This record gives sequence, C-alpha cells and structure tokens, in this order.
Amino acid sequence: MKYFKYRCAFVLALIAAIALHAQTFSVHSPDGKIALTFLLQDGKPTYSMTYATKPVILQSSMGLQLAEDINMGNGLKVVKDSATQANEDWAPVWGEEKTIHNHYNGLVVTLQTQTGRLVIMQLEFRVFNDGMGFRYMWPRQHNLNHFVVNKELTGFALAGDHKVWWIPGDFDTNEYSYLQSTISTVDATKSKGFTEIGLRVPFSESGVQTPLMMKSQDGLYINIHEAALVNYPAMQLDVDRKKLTLTSVLVPDAVGNAAYLQAPAKTPWRTILVSNKATDLLSSRTILNLNEPSVIKDPSFIKPSKFVGLWWEMHVGKSTWDYAAVQDNYTAENIGSAKPSGHHGATTQRVKQYIDFAAKHGMSGVLVEGWNIGWEDWSGKWKEDVFDFVTPYPDFDLKEVNSYAASKGVKMIMHHETSGSVTNYERNMDTAYRLMKNFGYDAVKTGYVGKIIPRGEHHDGQWMVNHYNRVARKTAQYRIMLDAHEPVRPTGLHRTYPNWLACEAARGNEFNAWSVGNPPEHETILPFTRLMGGPMDYTPGIFQIKVDYYKPGAKEQVHTTLAKQLALYVTMYSPLQMAADIPENYEQKPDAFKFIEDVAVDWDASYYLEAEPGDYLTIARKAKGKNEWYVGAITDENARMAIIDLSFLPAGKSYQATIYRDGEQAHWQSNPMQYVIETKTVKPGDVLKVKLAPGGGAAVSIK
Amino acid sequence: MKYFKYRCAFVLALIAAIALHAQTFSVHSPDGKIALTFLLQDGKPTYSMTYATKPVILQSSMGLQLAEDINMGNGLKVVKDSATQANEDWAPVWGEEKTIHNHYNGLVVTLQTQTGRLVIMQLEFRVFNDGMGFRYMWPRQHNLNHFVVNKELTGFALAGDHKVWWIPGDFDTNEYSYLQSTISTVDATKSKGFTEIGLRVPFSESGVQTPLMMKSQDGLYINIHEAALVNYPAMQLDVDRKKLTLTSVLVPDAVGNAAYLQAPAKTPWRTILVSNKATDLLSSRTILNLNEPSVIKDPSFIKPSKFVGLWWEMHVGKSTWDYAAVQDNYTAENIGSAKPSGHHGATTQRVKQYIDFAAKHGMSGVLVEGWNIGWEDWSGKWKEDVFDFVTPYPDFDLKEVNSYAASKGVKMIMHHETSGSVTNYERNMDTAYRLMKNFGYDAVKTGYVGKIIPRGEHHDGQWMVNHYNRVARKTAQYRIMLDAHEPVRPTGLHRTYPNWLACEAARGNEFNAWSVGNPPEHETILPFTRLMGGPMDYTPGIFQIKVDYYKPGAKEQVHTTLAKQLALYVTMYSPLQMAADIPENYEQKPDAFKFIEDVAVDWDASYYLEAEPGDYLTIARKAKGKNEWYVGAITDENARMAIIDLSFLPAGKSYQATIYRDGEQAHWQSNPMQYVIETKTVKPGDVLKVKLAPGGGAAVSIK
Repeated sequence: MKYFKYRCAFVLALIAAIALHAQTFSVHSPDGKIALTFLLQDGKPTYSMTYATKPVILQSSMGLQLAEDINMGNGLKVVKDSATQANEDWAPVWGEEKTIHNHYNGLVVTLQTQTGRLVIMQLEFRVFNDGMGFRYMWPRQHNLNHFVVNKELTGFALAGDHKVWWIPGDFDTNEYSYLQSTISTVDATKSKGFTEIGLRVPFSESGVQTPLMMKSQDGLYINIHEAALVNYPAMQLDVDRKKLTLTSVLVPDAVGNAAYLQAPAKTPWRTILVSNKATDLLSSRTILNLNEPSVIKDPSFIKPSKFVGLWWEMHVGKSTWDYAAVQDNYTAENIGSAKPSGHHGATTQRVKQYIDFAAKHGMSGVLVEGWNIGWEDWSGKWKEDVFDFVTPYPDFDLKEVNSYAASKGVKMIMHHETSGSVTNYERNMDTAYRLMKNFGYDAVKTGYVGKIIPRGEHHDGQWMVNHYNRVARKTAQYRIMLDAHEPVRPTGLHRTYPNWLACEAARGNEFNAWSVGNPPEHETILPFTRLMGGPMDYTPGIFQIKVDYYKPGAKEQVHTTLAKQLALYVTMYSPLQMAADIPENYEQKPDAFKFIEDVAVDWDASYYLEAEPGDYLTIARKAKGKNEWYVGAITDENARMAIIDLSFLPAGKSYQATIYRDGEQAHWQSNPMQYVIETKTVKPGDVLKVKLAPGGGAAVSIK
Repeated sequence: MKYFKYRCAFVLALIAAIALHAQTFSVHSPDGKIALTFLLQDGKPTYSMTYATKPVILQSSMGLQLAEDINMGNGLKVVKDSATQANEDWAPVWGEEKTIHNHYNGLVVTLQTQTGRLVIMQLEFRVFNDGMGFRYMWPRQHNLNHFVVNKELTGFALAGDHKVWWIPGDFDTNEYSYLQSTISTVDATKSKGFTEIGLRVPFSESGVQTPLMMKSQDGLYINIHEAALVNYPAMQLDVDRKKLTLTSVLVPDAVGNAAYLQAPAKTPWRTILVSNKATDLLSSRTILNLNEPSVIKDPSFIKPSKFVGLWWEMHVGKSTWDYAAVQDNYTAENIGSAKPSGHHGATTQRVKQYIDFAAKHGMSGVLVEGWNIGWEDWSGKWKEDVFDFVTPYPDFDLKEVNSYAASKGVKMIMHHETSGSVTNYERNMDTAYRLMKNFGYDAVKTGYVGKIIPRGEHHDGQWMVNHYNRVARKTAQYRIMLDAHEPVRPTGLHRTYPNWLACEAARGNEFNAWSVGNPPEHETILPFTRLMGGPMDYTPGIFQIKVDYYKPGAKEQVHTTLAKQLALYVTMYSPLQMAADIPENYEQKPDAFKFIEDVAVDWDASYYLEAEPGDYLTIARKAKGKNEWYVGAITDENARMAIIDLSFLPAGKSYQATIYRDGEQAHWQSNPMQYVIETKTVKPGDVLKVKLAPGGGAAVSIK
C-alpha cells in the first residue's frame, strides 16, 4: 500500500503563520497512477487529484454549511488521520461481469470545528486505479445529533477548458438530450428548448447534471458523479464558466433545506473517474465498489430477463392508456359508469396476444401499462388521489390474464405509475404489492411522471431519494423486482438492492415516438453518462422505425437504423431488457428478431473494444454460464467501420458468428430498416470489420 | 317556507347603469327571525344577515380567486336560482341529545363568469333559526376540471365593535389561551407571549381563529366558524380593526396555494350562529346539520366511554414517555442496545396497576402513552422515521398487557403519536391498525406534535385536513374509534364519521401540568369556541391540583378547584372522557371519584341552563336510556352562585341529588382541593343554588 503523509515540517519552519494551519495528506492508487492530495489550508479542507502526473482536479473546496451556523468548510483542524485499504473480489447477483475487483488505498481524516459548537466531521477518501471517491461523515458525538445541511461546498476545479457532454441542471428531470460544448460555453438556458419534456425545473444558467463526462485537451477522460445516494439529495453541479470550476448544488426540499441527517451520518460518495482511454471508464467498477454489499440474503427471486409489453403502441398512438378518453375522475366506485372510448390498449384480448408472442419467442415477461383505473386525468394535474394501483379497468380481467399467462409460462409485469403523487403511492404500496403477490407478479415497473406530491418536493431531493430507496427495500421484502421510471439517476445502489434491476432516469427510446426524439449520437453518450450509475431500461428493439407507419404524415421516427436497435441490447447494459416494439412488427422480421431472442441479459465478462463518447462504441460480452458471446457496435450520425477484435474468444476453437448489420444503403433517416444478416466462422484473434451506416450499428452473436 | 326574491324592478328603473348589474335574493329562517340577503352588485357576490331586524353581518364580500386568473369574486352574472328546504329529525350515533332537528330554508344561486373562461360556480345558503351556513360549489362543467384555489374572498363585515373571545391566527396550533378584547383592539402579536407552545406559526398581527365568539353591544351572541371541513384548508380570519371586518385566510400549502379541487367540488360551509341568548349557541345543532350523514353502516363498535391512562404522570414528571433518556435514534433493530433510564412510565407492571384500577372503578379503557420505541428523540427534530407504531419498548409486554386487560374486562387504548411526521404515519397506518386489531384494541389516540412532514405543510392546510379525514375513514374501515390530538379544530365531521369521537385541537388540561396553564375562565370559553365544532378530549378529573405534590417547589397547578374538575365532565361535552389523574390520587378520594364513576358520556337530552362566555356555565344532561341526570356548573376566577333550575326533571316524582361542590374556603389557587358532598331530595321545579368558589364549580348527579 502506498500511503504518504507529510507534516510539512519544512514549510512550518519557513512560514509559521500559514503553516500552523496547513496540513497535507496524500493517497496514491494501488498502481500509483492516481494521486489524491488532501490539504487543510487556513482551516479550510481542500483536495486535488492527478493522473500520471497530469492534473485532473486542481485544489478544490470541500465541506458543508449546516444550519444553526455550523460551518464545516472553514475554521477546522485535523484531529486524527488513518489509512484504509481493500484488495478483494466480490460477486454481484447479476452484472456485466461475474466477479468484481475492489482495490483501493484510502484515508480517513477527522476534522473538528475550533470555535462555537465543537463538531466533528470525517472525510473519507478511497483511491482506485481508475478514479476515486470521497464522502463526509459525522460520527456519533455529543454536540451533534439531528442536523440540517443547508449547502455542500464540494468543488471540482478543472485543469482546463474540457470538452463536456452534459444535460442542463434540473431538480425534476433528467430526460434531456445531451449537449456537447466546452466547459466555458456550457449554456443551461438551452433547457428552454426542450419543450417535449413536460416538467422542467432548471436551477441556473450554468447548471449541469452528473454523471458529467469530460475530455481534456491532453486526452484524459474524466467523469464526475456520485455513489450510494442514500438519505441525501442528488448532487448537481453549477459551472463557473470563467474559473472552470464546478460547485455542487444539492437539490432542495420544499422549504429550501438540502438534507436532514442524524449522527452518525454520511453523505454519498463524490466520484471522479479518470483514464486516458475512454473504454476504461466503461469498465470501471468504482461506483459499484463504493456502494454497500447486497442486503438481500436470498436473491433467488431476482432473474435478469427480457420482456415485451403493451407500451410502445400507446406511445405511437395506436391505442391509449386510458379507457374513457374524457378528463374525468374515475375511481373504484364510479368506474362502472365510464364509457369506453374503443381505443383502450390494455384489454384482456390484446394482452393475451402479447402473452402468446412472449411464450412463442422466449420472452419471460409481459408488461401491461394502462391496466388500472385513473388514466383519464392522471397527467399534469398535480392530483393526489390519482391511481389506487389495484382496480383494473372493466375490460381488463386481472384474474383471467394471469391464469392465461401462467398457463403459457409467462410472468406478468406490474405497472405502477404514480403521476408524481408519491404520498398516494406510499399509502397504497403495501396493498398494491400484496395484490401483485396474490396474482403471481414478481416484477414492477414504477413511474414518476409529473410534479411531485408532497408538493414542493423534487424528483431529485432527499425526500424522493428516500422514497426510491424505500421502494427498493419494500419490494425486496416482498421478493419483487423493480424497474423505476423517472426517478433520480442511479448511483450504483443496485449492488445493495440487486432486486432494483433497472431505472429509466434519462431520455429513453420513447421520445422517438412522439417528439424530436433522440439524436443518433444519443446512445453513444449514455454509457458514459447515465449508465455510469447503473442499468437503464432504455426499451430498445424498435423495428418499425418511422411513426408514419401508424399515423400517415407523422414526422417522428427512431433516430437509428434497425440494426442499431439490435446492437443496443449489448451496448446499453441492463439485466432487464424490453423488446419494445409490438408483436406484429416482430412477426414480420423473425430473422432480425432472432438476435433479441438469443441475446443474453446477464454476463460472465464484458470487453469494451472501442469507444469515443458521442461518436461510437463497440462492446462484446460473454453470456453468463454459456459459451456464447454477443457484440454490439454503434455509431453516431456518421458512417463508420466497427473494428471487432475477437481476441476475447477462448483459444483453440472456432465459432460461428451471426452478424446483423446495416444494409449497404441503410441510413437512419432515409433508409433505416435495411439490414443484412450473415454468418461466418470466426476464431480468436480474428478482427471483424463491420460497416455501420449513418446512425447505424451492428450486432453479432457468436456461439 | 318563507323565501323571498326581489328582482329590484323599481331600482332598475331609477338607476339603470347600476341596476343592470344588481340582483337580490333573500331567505328567512323558518321562524322568520333571521334574514339572509344575497346581492350580486356590479358582478360581485355579496351577502348580509340580520337577526330580528338587528344587523349581524353587513354587506360582505364573497367569492374566490382561482389560479389561471379565474376570478370567482367579480364579473359574475346570475344564471339560475332555486329554493331548498328541510324539516326533519335525525338520530346521531351518540351526542348531546338523541334526536336532532334539521330545519332550514335555503337558496342555491348559480353564477357564471362573463368574460374569459366561462366558469360556473354555485352559492348555497341554508338559514336556520339559530344561524346560517353558505358554501361555494362547482358543478361538473366543460371549462373547469382540476383547479387551484389561491384565495377565498369571503368577508364578515361586523355591525359594531363587538366584544370578542379569540386566539391568534396560526397555521399550526390552536393551543392558545383565549384572549378577550374588542374587535378593534385584537392584537395577534400577543401570540409571542405563548412560549409554552412549541410550534407557533401566526400569519398576521390581526389574525384570529374560528370558532370566533363575539358579543355585540346590543346583546347579540355571534359565532363564526365552518362546517364539514373536507378537502380544503381551514379558514382563519384576518381582522380589519378599523373597518371592523373579518376576511377569510385559507391556510396555504408548501408552495403557497390554498386548495386543489376537481369539479364537481364544494367548499366547507361558512357558518354564522346568532342569538340574543348565549345558551342558544350552546344548543345549536346547525354545524352538525350542515355535515353529511354518517357513512358508517354498522356503528355497533362505537361506544362512548370513560378511560384512565398512563399520561398525566408523564406530564407532571413522575415518569417519562421514553425508555433510555438519551437523544438517540432507537429502532426495532437497535432497541436491544438501549439502557433503561429507570423512569419509563409504560412498563408492564405499571400498566397493570392502571388496568386493575379501571376494572375496579368501571372505567372501560386504559390508554398507554410511551409504550412504543421512538420517544428518545421524537420531539422538535422534524425527524421523519420517528415511530414505527408497532414495536414496544423492552419493558412493555404487548401480549401480556393485553391478555391481562382482557382478563379484567378492560379495553386497551392504542396511542399513535406521529410527531408531525405524517408521511411516516401514513405509510405505517395499515400495519399499525392491523396490530391493534390483532391485540383487540378498538380505539386509538393519535397525536400531531411538532412541524408537519411533508415539510412545508401546516396542521390546518388541505393536505393535513385530508389526512385527518383519511384517518377517520381508515379507522372506520378497521372498526376503530378515533381521538385525535393536535389536529385542525373540528367542524362537525363526527356526524359523518361517528367513530371519530373526539379531538383535542385546543389548549387542554395538560398545559396546567407544566406551563402557566389555563386561566380559570378557560373552560367557560371553550364551549363557545372550540366545542362549537365537536367534542374535546380535554382530560378533566385532576384531583391532585398542584404539581408541587410531585416536584417540591413547582409553581404549576391546575387553575380550578377539584369540584370544578368534576363539573367539566358535564360542561365539556365529549363521548370519550378521560379520568386523567393517576390511580393513587383517585384512591385517596373515593367519594369525589364516585361522580366520575357515575357520570354518563352519552345523552338523551341536554339543558343549557345559564351561560356567559368567559364567566360561567351551567348545563344539565339526561343520561342516554337512563333516568339519571348530571349537572355541571362552573365559574371563572370569580365566586358565583350557580342557579340550577330543575324544571327539566320529569314531573310527578322526587329524586335524590348528590351535590359535589366547593368547600366554603375553597379557592382555585389558595385552597383548590376542598370540596363538600351533600345529598338532597329534589323535585321538578326546584331551583338549586350552589355556591361556586373563585375558579370553582359544582357537579350534581340526580337519580
């Protein structure tokens, strides 16, 4: 272990006045490449970070402002320091690889205020080979019990005017497309242009969200995020475009406070990943390593899986979530008086078609949205008693559907849209989960569209963070798998709650159905941003790319080729993958659908072959417990040649590769559905070169 | 039915410009004494009210300001008017009398905006012989579905500078002592002096709360309150001390809105009671009549009753609610590590003593506070996960206590203090009620001490109003009786939810234990203010008047004589009455305790014999289904002779009266525990004259 500590004796001798208050501690990563330096200067805690001698973070502020005038960012002294370390392997319940290595050198510095109330705070640093994390902790102590965090002072002073992929800072939504600029030209007022997002609450003209992806002019890839967001608001960042520094902005609660804590307490980890190779960030497990181990003793109910669902057909307007198509308040008491519009999607009959399709094609689950009463006036009304989560529409026979699904060996997936009315969801959660278990549902997709109730709270504030985690714990108690839509973006908590398989928490494929959609580069950025925190339920697999198929004249479309939709099953890692299109569209292209049938959702190993954020990405993965490999390669709006180095294949054998690639004339806009399927015998060391169309991609299965 | 409608044809002819916009409608009470006039003037709805030709309310504003610039207080036209009436009897599940007469003449005026969005609103008036009520209603309509109320414009223009008994307007507490002044000298900054109230959120220098009790210089008693507070914030009042008008102030939510409604919708009733006799206000059933009938089909589980409880001994410092006496966060997981302080009240052993006492003296219930974990740091921390409502302290054996109580024929009463963390309570309510039913608890006392969570919400706002009503509905579903402490003040909803037996919602007897306490006049004002809305769990029956009995040197004391404590069981109507002192104090005075043993809690009839708010009160009641009568007479700080006219006794018989009165030297301060018990044979028409000491009272039982 390399751990250095300087007491600055020499400096002390020279400049007594300053040095009395200056103490430095350094920690190096196990491979020595990354150096973290903690410096207490004039009572102020600061840190800096280098990668192979290149500056990553210049000296930056740390600390917090607590209520009752307790300043934990100034006037502090070091009362203790101690080294920590780990070098161990652990096995996730599911993941991109079967074994994860946790290797760091760490430091805990204990600080104390020197005037007023004597309060103790600890800073904990852990330095890995691909980055580091630090957090604030308050041990049990006499002078601090319950306390309120007003503000966090953590800063990130950047070493240059990096290129940055960002979305506007916003307390309630992370469904923006990514913008690319330099740090000095970040302009969050661009949030105004995103009128397709129903609820936008930007907080500053220069606010951005994490995971924030940057690239320095000297080729360092830097990612700032957080790990283990528990009992604390999300950290967003405000950019000082002149000083090139980022300052943490904690999402406030209804009365303007950031967090309510009780000692012993700790913040989430602030994480900084860095490498000179983009692919190293994709393979980083630092955020997972900074999360706590699983709390689920018997994870046998947790099953990575693929599913279909009554969902895309509502997004493209083929059917509706609601039953009556009037803005009335239907409840269990008066739903009998509702007149059906004739366009309701989730009818028993239609759901059976999805069940039949799932059974035939080996999709283990069927999601049904719009099955329950409340959808008539669910959206945008800030209505509290919106859904009851147990009463089906008259044309959806809960019992019959579930018997039918059971007879076909298919699992139904429950849908709980809250409409942001979380108080309502919380008071109905137990009842709703009991209903699920009575009908054999093992998984729930939750949703948080719209303004939050409790009114004044935000999607990303402490109250909601606690809610999402509460849902994860409660579903775990009920042995239910969880897929959360519109929550705060993930921070690796799926290690702790492996039943929490996926989140949306970013701009999903759905935007392509009814808005300007997601630009072709979108999916090349997500793995470097949103996916740093955990799997995304992106809902890939749209085969009928253009919406005018349903609505003549419609301009909306998915901004990829069909082949790229296949590639996303590999490049957008998730243990829960939807085949999002409607059965009829898949039945028309059984050869292409074969890839979705085959592709795994849990992996022994992953190989990040090539990547540049915003441009391209090629990833190969080995299916868990099988000698099967799947490769996804995608590009942005530019055509490209994917270079697939098959060195990862075990030596001494040859394999059959099936390549699903863009047709020669394919183009995301002009000709998105042209694809070619080829088979080829390959052996380790072969390098496949596959042409990707503009907005295109390729998927390869190897057996 | 007397119902008059003037189209103002004459005025029209005279002043066309004004009259085009002036329409008048009048309604008289069944006895013709009260006249209500609705006048739409220049598009503005107004009303006025007289009693026997005396003005009660001068022309006053009506209407509301809705969000999205919808003004429902100006620019309106009358599109319809219709008369209503009722003359009927109904029987409450329990009450001050077994049959209630509902007799009114009413009017519904339909108004519509004339520009912008065409929105319809209805005003409904009901005029009774002792007052009137009006409310705003929005029928189902095309142009209004979900809507937000920003402000209510209802005003009350008083006809003079009345004497008024008031407490400061406050969004979170109604636990002030009453202040007496004229309207022009109301000074709500006096709220600052009430430092014994933990949370005070006054909203104005001239704000007051309802029920507001006034007396005009010409001898009219006027009371302003509201009825059927459902899905709306409480109405408080701001006093214009120069113009002598009151304007409604709706308690705002966390983001400053007043109410979220969906058409069809209605506000609570605004009520104005009036008479030239103070006792007529006490016998008024108008607020009950304006509430909806009971929703409980089988009310057999609802049993008015008396109870004792582990409660007062904590208030006087003899024992504690908490177990460990340290400010730690104890949960079901770590409570085993807590060290008992030795002062915990709710031990199995101590509770058994209360059960023994209850069984011996015919008290049907035993309340236990401090039985469950969470009391160490429950108060004033704005802590969310404070109680779990199911985990007992290690020294309280839930099972053993309940078996013991069952063996003695005593019912345990559950206690659910929320500490204001209502989100926490709501997510645990079902589990908590199930635990109650498993252990045979039929009644729960809830508590809302401290700042509300959802943070930013107030005790008296719409969100909390909905919560209290939700608890009433949910406990009804579980066949549980409810006694709510620190909720919004009642508005007659116990008609609709007769399982909601009582509330605190005012300054209870407990203040006498640890603060400046309640002045001797306090209990002579409560029946004219707080009790207008419904029964109060005041917790009378303190025999050991001075706290120095427990804490040598303590200055605190109950500000009444012992005999007055007995009288309160009659004057402070409640179907749920606590014998609030500790068993040991009662055992010392079995002769006085006899009255508490005997007194009924449900009544066939009540006789309001004499009363003056702030001075004195004498009430007699006939026990339900029994030929027993109980009389209570109380005075303020002045000695007085209570005149008890026994004309209410059925003719042709004589009865034995037992009189519990103040001793000759009794005085609330200097000699509060001196009392005399006499028996006397009485007959109808006799007039008992009983001397009341300063701060004293008398209780009489007649069989």
